[in-house]
Amino acid sequence: MSDFWKTSISRVRPNEILVRGYPIEQLTRHCSFGEVVYLLLTGDLPKGNEGRLVEAILVSCCEHSLAAPSADAVRFVASSGVPLQTAVAAGISAIGDVHGGAIEPCAKILQRAAAEKKSGEAVLRELKTAGQRMPGYGHPVHSNDPRTAVLLALADEWKLAGKHTRLGKEIEDATVKVMGRRLPMNVDGAIAALMCDLKMAPALGKAFFIISRAPGYIAHAHEQMTQEKPFKAARHEEIAYTGPARRDVLPVPSAAPTPPPNAPEL
Amino acid sequence: MSDFWKTSISRVRPNEILVRGYPIEQLTRHCSFGEVVYLLLTGDLPKGNEGRLVEAILVSCCEHSLAAPSADAVRFVASSGVPLQTAVAAGISAIGDVHGGAIEPCAKILQRAAAEKKSGEAVLRELKTAGQRMPGYGHPVHSNDPRTAVLLALADEWKLAGKHTRLGKEIEDATVKVMGRRLPMNVDGAIAALMCDLKMAPALGKAFFIISRAPGYIAHAHEQMTQEKPFKAARHEEIAYTGPARRDVLPVPSAAPTPPPNAPEL
Amino acid sequence: MSDFWKTSISRVRPNEILVRGYPIEQLTRHCSFGEVVYLLLTGDLPKGNEGRLVEAILVSCCEHSLAAPSADAVRFVASSGVPLQTAVAAGISAIGDVHGGAIEPCAKILQRAAAEKKSGEAVLRELKTAGQRMPGYGHPVHSNDPRTAVLLALADEWKLAGKHTRLGKEIEDATVKVMGRRLPMNVDGAIAALMCDLKMAPALGKAFFIISRAPGYIAHAHEQMTQEKPFKAARHEEIAYTGPARRDVLPVPSAAPTPPPNAPEL
Amino acid sequence: MSDFWKTSISRVRPNEILVRGYPIEQLTRHCSFGEVVYLLLTGDLPKGNEGRLVEAILVSCCEHSLAAPSADAVRFVASSGVPLQTAVAAGISAIGDVHGGAIEPCAKILQRAAAEKKSGEAVLRELKTAGQRMPGYGHPVHSNDPRTAVLLALADEWKLAGKHTRLGKEIEDATVKVMGRRLPMNVDGAIAALMCDLKMAPALGKAFFIISRAPGYIAHAHEQMTQEKPFKAARHEEIAYTGPARRDVLPVPSAAPTPPPNAPEL
Repeated sequence: MSDFWKTSISRVRPNEILVRGYPIEQLTRHCSFGEVVYLLLTGDLPKGNEGRLVEAILVSCCEHSLAAPSADAVRFVASSGVPLQTAVAAGISAIGDVHGGAIEPCAKILQRAAAEKKSGEAVLRELKTAGQRMPGYGHPVHSNDPRTAVLLALADEWKLAGKHTRLGKEIEDATVKVMGRRLPMNVDGAIAALMCDLKMAPALGKAFFIISRAPGYIAHAHEQMTQEKPFKAARHEEIAYTGPARRDVLPVPSAAPTPPPNAPEL
Repeated sequence: MSDFWKTSISRVRPNEILVRGYPIEQLTRHCSFGEVVYLLLTGDLPKGNEGRLVEAILVSCCEHSLAAPSADAVRFVASSGVPLQTAVAAGISAIGDVHGGAIEPCAKILQRAAAEKKSGEAVLRELKTAGQRMPGYGHPVHSNDPRTAVLLALADEWKLAGKHTRLGKEIEDATVKVMGRRLPMNVDGAIAALMCDLKMAPALGKAFFIISRAPGYIAHAHEQMTQEKPFKAARHEEIAYTGPARRDVLPVPSAAPTPPPNAPEL
Repeated sequence: MSDFWKTSISRVRPNEILVRGYPIEQLTRHCSFGEVVYLLLTGDLPKGNEGRLVEAILVSCCEHSLAAPSADAVRFVASSGVPLQTAVAAGISAIGDVHGGAIEPCAKILQRAAAEKKSGEAVLRELKTAGQRMPGYGHPVHSNDPRTAVLLALADEWKLAGKHTRLGKEIEDATVKVMGRRLPMNVDGAIAALMCDLKMAPALGKAFFIISRAPGYIAHAHEQMTQEKPFKAARHEEIAYTGPARRDVLPVPSAAPTPPPNAPEL
Repeated sequence: MSDFWKTSISRVRPNEILVRGYPIEQLTRHCSFGEVVYLLLTGDLPKGNEGRLVEAILVSCCEHSLAAPSADAVRFVASSGVPLQTAVAAGISAIGDVHGGAIEPCAKILQRAAAEKKSGEAVLRELKTAGQRMPGYGHPVHSNDPRTAVLLALADEWKLAGKHTRLGKEIEDATVKVMGRRLPMNVDGAIAALMCDLKMAPALGKAFFIISRAPGYIAHAHEQMTQEKPFKAARHEEIAYTGPARRDVLPVPSAAPTPPPNAPEL
């Protein structure tokens, strides 16, 4: 057996599927999807309420209507005569650095700062000096994101909020002093803090939106395919053209003639 | 407000996100992810254990190691220097008609046959006469799929198995008589029967694999990016070339010369 | 060497790349991209002007502004903080059955009808009887598609228009009689006829749009990334919500309690 | 007309398609695909042989057999029962930072160094001091890449090689002195130098592989779909499992019980 196909995630043999060592039928009977997500992403089942918090995070981010580039992309692709999974994949591919992408850099900042026992104010001042913004704070639509509040409350109730979440709140408080106005922690910031307290790798920051939005994209693709007309596109009358005016293709006398196709090498 | 941006799935306003009418913070606090998947795909929250069954289905299909085209695609794409979501999207896009794709046609057959009160044997005989195969039965690796057994058992315990599941089992029994050997219901077949009993549209058949495999693809992409070398590809020594032997590009004397680039219209 | 990695398309060895047998440096020096596309898709270099016609087809379809679902998808994905190729892939994935997808079924109809020496009128009458539409005719924006005219003219000049193209024109003429109004051959229909006369497999019908639009999608992604703001999305004020009014999540007293996470099998 | 749909790339009106101002029928008749790619990516038609060089670059990179992550991804996705464009999109999405991705950073280095009139040796010494590698040099398979040689020769013949190409060659020569062995310019390096001399933006570096490989991916998807069996995947016997041994899901007595689904807010 070569090294080409190698994984620690699961093993398949006839009539046996192990995920991180656990038989799939035991996981199916005893574990929530949140616990299994935790298992897949960290390698072990949670010892307490971690799976419930993962599940709550997944629920909280499942939809943001058409006010998201990814959901809009799903609708256009779904209108073009493709199977369901093709439209969903286009949505997943748009979970980019500015769309669910603040979790990872925010988690990295929180992880490093917590390890170095920095205060929230110190974190913000250092970023300001470096000319950088703190990811995970502020939102273009929500001044008081309902998702942040419920996630932080549940983490408290389930005894899962730790030093990263405390630091995250401290940073929000410090925005008043350092930036001159309160920048509330948004849902990306809350997930970043919680995933650090859950001991998940910051590089997995986009995982939550990817999993959470998948059923939403499916719903959007299905609605587009069953309730709307095919070929959703901007109408030509509504497109502002900002390029050059109509012009003709002109001869280029100086250009060397193209050799005949398949001409022999000289 | 035009009709261009229109959806019944969710509504976003400042500090409010409603999913199918329900405030996101209430869903986050009170509902499992399985219940919210049910809500997104059917339009309403379950009245009983339906969300638990959805959750069990999602857990049961979460991984099948590298023995799946989609997971393999994830590994190659993840090795090429792309962000996490790009690799996951490639995996999602491969949930095709022969990879998680038996659920939809199986559900359509079960739905129609149950409505017409056909027996399992009649279903198989009609397909045989038409020269078609029954999707959702038989598996290349598992003769006794552990996922099927646990899902059917849970559906029984939770009083969610109905006429479609009964018909699905009847079809398995009838394979002995009609095909000459037992073709066991595979996990696609089980999900097809259960989704019909859950009153979900067969056109959503691929939804379960799409959502369920997403965390597995994330784990595979992350493992590839952190544990393996970049640029995973077949080595040229291992590729069997079956095309023409080396040959030279020859002149085509009869071909008309290509006009110079940008030549004027004649 | 196993059969797992096997292809007739190209061979790579140290300092040698053969495409369908031809050394890459000879192809690069002597062949147009259109000729190499023909080589890749048919297995052989053209013997006459076929490469020029392929090239003309590729040029003719390269752009249709934002009046296309695929280009719109590219813009949304490109706005979300992803690399260039991710946005382009979303566009490619939207070359679906109703967006560049008429070429394949149109080519299949033309190929079969030409083999059976059917008239254009007979083709239309048979489709009408079967309640089906003729793909590749009519266009929502162009009553006289400029791409169709130039492609058919070039094919004539280059002696490449054959029986399929003649049949395609005959069908357009017959629409007056059979449908009561002239349905002009659109660019999909023209490409379908020409690809049949070029002896390319109808199953490759989407190839032309895929290749042709790729540079257009790149231009759109680049323009979005460099000229526009990130996070292109519908504004929440502009989205018509058609779902249920705000409602509360209610208790379900009859639902059995969920067992504790990780509870032992009973 | 709002600003939401805005582009300088093309304009569509009934029976008129302008690309960067040029009517599509004129482009189709007079221009090569390489010239139109140049037009789309730079905004203007070439004044000399630039389109021929773009075309040569596109031909040179069209295929690298299965020895590429992207082509392998195409084969797996194409085997799973999806339409052609879905498989091609997976390949395009894998043109990542380590797969065709050296062009952009190499072009940026060449552009800056040429503007500052740095020598090849100075470029390498600065990178070495910073602990960075020079992208675009060296290749795991080709010690003397046939694509590099022909592209540089054609650029010379067509008078298109300028200061960036000269600097690129100088860097290759300097590798002997600075690195102790000759690291030959690979095809990424050659394209990087040529695109700078063609005055194309380095951020478009991946454009060449995206466009060039598209027909190759189509050929691979078509070959997979027509010549191979569905469901290409690693066989379970060939997968090395490196995770935990089989273990049972154990109870977690301390975990708080999950509330019933849909329980009322307390």
